[in-house]
Amino acid sequence: MRFFSDNAAAACPAVLDALAEANRLDTAYDGDQWSRRLDGAFSDLFETEVRALWVTTGTAANCIGLATLCPPYGAILCHRDAHIENDEAGAPGFYTNGAKLMLVDGPGAKLTVDAVAEARGRVRADVHQVQPKAVSITNATEYGLTYSADETATLGEFARSHGLGFHLDGARFANAVVSTGAKPADLTWRAGVDVMSFGFVKNGGLNAEALVFFRTELADEALVLRKRAGHLLSKGRYLAAQLLAMLENDAWLDNARAANAAAQALAAAAGPRLVHPVQANELFVRMTPAEAAKLRAQGFDFYDWAPGEIRLVTSWDQDMEAVGRLAAAIEAL
Amino acid sequence: MRFFSDNAAAACPAVLDALAEANRLDTAYDGDQWSRRLDGAFSDLFETEVRALWVTTGTAANCIGLATLCPPYGAILCHRDAHIENDEAGAPGFYTNGAKLMLVDGPGAKLTVDAVAEARGRVRADVHQVQPKAVSITNATEYGLTYSADETATLGEFARSHGLGFHLDGARFANAVVSTGAKPADLTWRAGVDVMSFGFVKNGGLNAEALVFFRTELADEALVLRKRAGHLLSKGRYLAAQLLAMLENDAWLDNARAANAAAQALAAAAGPRLVHPVQANELFVRMTPAEAAKLRAQGFDFYDWAPGEIRLVTSWDQDMEAVGRLAAAIEAL
Amino acid sequence: MRFFSDNAAAACPAVLDALAEANRLDTAYDGDQWSRRLDGAFSDLFETEVRALWVTTGTAANCIGLATLCPPYGAILCHRDAHIENDEAGAPGFYTNGAKLMLVDGPGAKLTVDAVAEARGRVRADVHQVQPKAVSITNATEYGLTYSADETATLGEFARSHGLGFHLDGARFANAVVSTGAKPADLTWRAGVDVMSFGFVKNGGLNAEALVFFRTELADEALVLRKRAGHLLSKGRYLAAQLLAMLENDAWLDNARAANAAAQALAAAAGPRLVHPVQANELFVRMTPAEAAKLRAQGFDFYDWAPGEIRLVTSWDQDMEAVGRLAAAIEAL
Amino acid sequence: MRFFSDNAAAACPAVLDALAEANRLDTAYDGDQWSRRLDGAFSDLFETEVRALWVTTGTAANCIGLATLCPPYGAILCHRDAHIENDEAGAPGFYTNGAKLMLVDGPGAKLTVDAVAEARGRVRADVHQVQPKAVSITNATEYGLTYSADETATLGEFARSHGLGFHLDGARFANAVVSTGAKPADLTWRAGVDVMSFGFVKNGGLNAEALVFFRTELADEALVLRKRAGHLLSKGRYLAAQLLAMLENDAWLDNARAANAAAQALAAAAGPRLVHPVQANELFVRMTPAEAAKLRAQGFDFYDWAPGEIRLVTSWDQDMEAVGRLAAAIEAL
Repeated sequence: MRFFSDNAAAACPAVLDALAEANRLDTAYDGDQWSRRLDGAFSDLFETEVRALWVTTGTAANCIGLATLCPPYGAILCHRDAHIENDEAGAPGFYTNGAKLMLVDGPGAKLTVDAVAEARGRVRADVHQVQPKAVSITNATEYGLTYSADETATLGEFARSHGLGFHLDGARFANAVVSTGAKPADLTWRAGVDVMSFGFVKNGGLNAEALVFFRTELADEALVLRKRAGHLLSKGRYLAAQLLAMLENDAWLDNARAANAAAQALAAAAGPRLVHPVQANELFVRMTPAEAAKLRAQGFDFYDWAPGEIRLVTSWDQDMEAVGRLAAAIEAL
Repeated sequence: MRFFSDNAAAACPAVLDALAEANRLDTAYDGDQWSRRLDGAFSDLFETEVRALWVTTGTAANCIGLATLCPPYGAILCHRDAHIENDEAGAPGFYTNGAKLMLVDGPGAKLTVDAVAEARGRVRADVHQVQPKAVSITNATEYGLTYSADETATLGEFARSHGLGFHLDGARFANAVVSTGAKPADLTWRAGVDVMSFGFVKNGGLNAEALVFFRTELADEALVLRKRAGHLLSKGRYLAAQLLAMLENDAWLDNARAANAAAQALAAAAGPRLVHPVQANELFVRMTPAEAAKLRAQGFDFYDWAPGEIRLVTSWDQDMEAVGRLAAAIEAL
Repeated sequence: MRFFSDNAAAACPAVLDALAEANRLDTAYDGDQWSRRLDGAFSDLFETEVRALWVTTGTAANCIGLATLCPPYGAILCHRDAHIENDEAGAPGFYTNGAKLMLVDGPGAKLTVDAVAEARGRVRADVHQVQPKAVSITNATEYGLTYSADETATLGEFARSHGLGFHLDGARFANAVVSTGAKPADLTWRAGVDVMSFGFVKNGGLNAEALVFFRTELADEALVLRKRAGHLLSKGRYLAAQLLAMLENDAWLDNARAANAAAQALAAAAGPRLVHPVQANELFVRMTPAEAAKLRAQGFDFYDWAPGEIRLVTSWDQDMEAVGRLAAAIEAL
Repeated sequence: MRFFSDNAAAACPAVLDALAEANRLDTAYDGDQWSRRLDGAFSDLFETEVRALWVTTGTAANCIGLATLCPPYGAILCHRDAHIENDEAGAPGFYTNGAKLMLVDGPGAKLTVDAVAEARGRVRADVHQVQPKAVSITNATEYGLTYSADETATLGEFARSHGLGFHLDGARFANAVVSTGAKPADLTWRAGVDVMSFGFVKNGGLNAEALVFFRTELADEALVLRKRAGHLLSKGRYLAAQLLAMLENDAWLDNARAANAAAQALAAAAGPRLVHPVQANELFVRMTPAEAAKLRAQGFDFYDWAPGEIRLVTSWDQDMEAVGRLAAAIEAL
């Protein structure tokens, strides 16, 4: 019974069907009929004109997006626990040709305007120091918290008024939309977001993610960067078809609802053991090694996060009976 | 009736079956059971110990490989018509952090030792000039010619004796193996090749290519470069499963045989119109615009390559009846 | 008697005096009184508002300038024999973070609009190929030829109308100004040049070159790039003082006149042996190894350029008696 | 009366004399007689075989050195207040093609093994995180503290045993040598240092710094990197001559002694106001804005470092009478 990562889950049926449907002759790269429908499909979803590109990983989506916002000699303000800092092997530096991540602290991997302003304020506006050019947030965060539309808009306003680009890592954006009940538009462009990575793989996709530009004029450069990084697949229609399948049937929302519900069931059981509020599909739970071993002995698989702390991640296809057993097992500790 | 690119073809049945089989819970990234079998499967094929990584594009495979052979301040000797020079948007410069392609001429996009030696000889061995550090060839070439095992070995010997790494772009390696009848080992490591991209997508794959290291000590760096470039997919098992499926059933050879046979049927018809010998699955055919229009009017789709020249590419799934009709139509011109 | 490089000559008296004058307490970096006068001094010279930065080498000047014109994924059209291609160790690739030099042929290392247009025309305007973003010329060229104001303007018009930046490598700009009799303004911004490196070191400077922006809005980025490359010297006043000393007394023109005159004296002697017209301070002279040896035996020092060809370079401080003796020795061959 | 930066001071007489002596014809770049003596001169000083290159800035020296120790995908452990982090505009990222600085805390900008070990220990040894490849310290530190030979050796041992390169920023190495009384060898290679930047400009030089390799096999790559970065001056002899002049007459030690002595005189006056011990030529002094204004009104020039804190820097040519007056003025506050 796996609770260690939504990355390990299977692809959902709509995605597999879409692959089969796309398995026919069509134009190479992104000239096919599916890829050409992406801008429209995401524009509908976001209630404004956007441009949307497929890529195969969140790292590629994040870093191509960041590279359109930040020059090689600039810095990106982000949380110390952000995925771009901790889990992308320096890809932001690679894609931006050398930009720097300027790290900001705050509970739950969440940025506040105060913390961002303080970090930015420490930089002298001279040629000796690297100047911030963008802010990046993750919603839901790496610790499973969400930004509300208002929280996002406050950061967006700060970014705008200081000439900073605003990037959103939406690896678990679906979970945030479901959790906050906010419209996708309110969590993004209406809040000042310029570009986002929109995650599908952790949410039942097979290997397609979306890179969505609300500042549509940035997309042309992104097309070049995608190709230059070897991310323009020659049979891109299989990626586009996955994205369309998950959007058109609201599978992306259904999947996220299922994962979030499983997380809530576990959160209720974990109660005071929770390190962070559970607002998406991740739980960080205080637990002694002996307790963790006891759960593992019952067949539950998860990640040791820190001394005395485990991480549980739920997925779109989580077996609710297994969830119930884990909840009971936690309560029984 | 499509003859414009093997990139546009569908994926073959073995690949689709493999995707379905891999659609289950397993470890994320490349820790799954399929990815862990790649080294062994490719080692068997090449009759020596190799290390093999999946990536999603030939550009990524080529450029990660080249980056392990050439420092940022070095140069890679390649043909002026090489894919890495003409069709990868500068990705070699991106992945190597600035290395230079040093262009060499020769008919049919094929390198000879003489031409490579001459290009290398023009470089002064001082700090003012960029020094060559690697040679790259493509087999089959961008014009559908093949290198024999001996031709490859001659270049390999030159590379070795001058301290140059040796890279093989094998986007259509399967077609070369079938065409030359040579063993994979003889076209690669026995001929001095250090690293190759091994193409599957043009040959019936969906979106998986292999990057194979004969100098196995280079693979660890490649793992880092792959991740840093955003090419470590979180559900990598779908890529590994494709590669295994095509290897284990010799589907890769069957597919290439089919494509090559279709090309030979067309070559017989094109006869003296051929610009290059047809040794793989590409034909470059002299043709006036009026003749090309006549073919198109009959429903044949292909690429105008140069003034008075068209390109025909055959695929694993080419309908042989359509091939026969095209052959007849060319003869009837 | 040295004729091998103007790089080997001494610094002229005005420069040494300027160093002594600058040897006092002043603000660090480029905040000192001399550095602050550069914009004005070069604006006067060019009869328009420019911005001027000191750097210590032509390579740095060229490459910082190019980096403001060309993105990492772009290409710079230049002559195959350009210094940026042949003698800067790949620095353009380093400073632009990966841009490519697209090589153009032509006699005397000189570009023509036809040759540039043809090279540009070979590039497909798609995402698979690196797109040209700038043109770079050298005046006087690496073979000692000059571009007239009209020739420059024709190239400038081509660049402008195709959206390309226009860079001038002016390592021997002084020699070109003296030789053509053109105004500095007519050889640069009036002809469409956006940015130039303005050489002083080969012309009697000690270690200061100028980077001059006619598109002044590019200079702010150049200040950042200069610092980021470690080229913002902490005692920059010694560089600024050199440049001012050579400008304010027309020493730069006097020095170039002397070097050009020495070259003309040798050119008259070399006559039909000349490979290129002599329009600046470099001569390329056909000569057998035995003849070259004969000259060397008489104490003349120079560079073997190619089989059967030597290079002679004259300097600002060339001893005219030695020049006369070399001229006589060549005539006597 | 200037106390704001040793970067603003004049060059010392030995340096100016050396420039005049070098002002004659010699080979270009670094082939001249002075440049060829550098390896020997620095080898004598360090009592072992080293290789030494001139460059014009500490940033270039630091970053070329770091680039020989750390690949683009690696990290350099350094203090949060290190010059390479705060005052080099991201040059380490530029020169290493994207490596990351991993910041470590500690009083006085000084690293301890415990702090370095803790930072390194936070990194998972997997492909998702950037792996540390080098440690960099500054001696004397940015806050004017020194590392003893033993302290350096302890860090060197840590680096060695963890496979990390060890870099020393010696912008004020002379002050550290004088202050600690240690031999140059004991503060460097005997303590495990692989490469250092050896500062001359802040200590009475004009515009030459040294980059010294104790792991001599790294120097060949550094020669390439120096050229590629535009730091190979064509008249390099003026730089080499400066370095030799300061070494051969022990001017570097005399100059540092003078600066340190001036700092000690001020330290005695500042007493309990000192934020850090004064072990080199920098003082950080607690002072209200009103007090600072009072000093400025008496003609003393210095830098406001932080709220309630000023920085005083003494130089090799500090007028000791002015020092006495400042000391008295501070005591009188």
